[in-house]
Amino acid sequence: MPPASTPPASDDAAAAPKRGRPGYDRETLLSVCVDVFNRYGYDATSMGTLSKHLGISKSAIYHHVESKEAILGQALDRALDSLEAVFESVLASDHGPVNKLEAILDGSVRVLVDQMPYVTLLLRLRGNSEIEEAALQRRRTLTRTVEDLVREAQELGELRTDVSGKSAPRLMLGMVNSIVDWYQPGRSGTVDQLTATVVTMVFSGLRA
Amino acid sequence: MPPASTPPASDDAAAAPKRGRPGYDRETLLSVCVDVFNRYGYDATSMGTLSKHLGISKSAIYHHVESKEAILGQALDRALDSLEAVFESVLASDHGPVNKLEAILDGSVRVLVDQMPYVTLLLRLRGNSEIEEAALQRRRTLTRTVEDLVREAQELGELRTDVSGKSAPRLMLGMVNSIVDWYQPGRSGTVDQLTATVVTMVFSGLRA
Repeated sequence: MPPASTPPASDDAAAAPKRGRPGYDRETLLSVCVDVFNRYGYDATSMGTLSKHLGISKSAIYHHVESKEAILGQALDRALDSLEAVFESVLASDHGPVNKLEAILDGSVRVLVDQMPYVTLLLRLRGNSEIEEAALQRRRTLTRTVEDLVREAQELGELRTDVSGKSAPRLMLGMVNSIVDWYQPGRSGTVDQLTATVVTMVFSGLRA
Repeated sequence: MPPASTPPASDDAAAAPKRGRPGYDRETLLSVCVDVFNRYGYDATSMGTLSKHLGISKSAIYHHVESKEAILGQALDRALDSLEAVFESVLASDHGPVNKLEAILDGSVRVLVDQMPYVTLLLRLRGNSEIEEAALQRRRTLTRTVEDLVREAQELGELRTDVSGKSAPRLMLGMVNSIVDWYQPGRSGTVDQLTATVVTMVFSGLRA
């Protein structure tokens, strides 16, 4: 959301001389744009819509980024870089597959909470452009990693084999991804409680 | 999708006299419209878009339904009626809360698979209109039922109390709802395997 004190600028570039441009840093600009994408949908959001919400002219936006797609790309990179960092760090450890899965779920939940608007954008993508398709491809690689770990854990006898090895990875990721739809910091409990609940439910179950 | 043999009709009502209208029954019409809503988003879908995909004129659509909102309402009713039927039947039983939760998850998964396009539409709603807000209200009632059962089960000592009673209901429903994003009949295993995996994971956990 734009600062309340910033009047919406005209779309006319001449109306927003460089000196008069409100001082958005890249970080804030990206954050506002992602909120607008999540609110209206990426496809339905024009540079004009972004301009209105940022309270700066389109040309002032172009001072920061070259296109709407570039903003999307930066936002998706933020979400995916964070998730990939979790996966890479876990895979580099010498733990067994169940411990790796636990650490991946724990770390992914924390990324979802920390980077919620960015991950929300990622999870709502439909893949209508090259940038979106590339992001979905990176997301599929993460899913496959979880599938591989579940299979490995089943083969080692660490996980039940009376559940579907195809569904279980999708279900546990679906549970984690749902967090962007309902988690409200403060109202839904702490992140530590959240990660503990996810990991306990998936591996030990809720039954007392 | 329209039958491949049906050429898209002109938007001009006069171009589609009643005799010449392809014979959509209400059921097929609803089904095609829901697919279009899910593909483009409800807000972004105009009656013109529906007309194009149905291959019939707008006035022919109006022969079946009075508005785009009415189509949405019928589609959401279908999803919600089915889910509510599961919940009502389970709540009328004299089982304990954990057995009720198991039956609710099992029944909900089956509704999601059976009525996938209708539930997908429901789950993607943002609540921008009265019809959408009413549907979200009915959905919230179902969520509260699950929250109440989890709390009751924790109080009776049937479910762990070292997990968050706020997060657990949302996570189990999030897991179930994720099914519309990835489940492909045939490729992802049978519905029985799916329900068994959900119920086992939530209550007993995946650890061998």
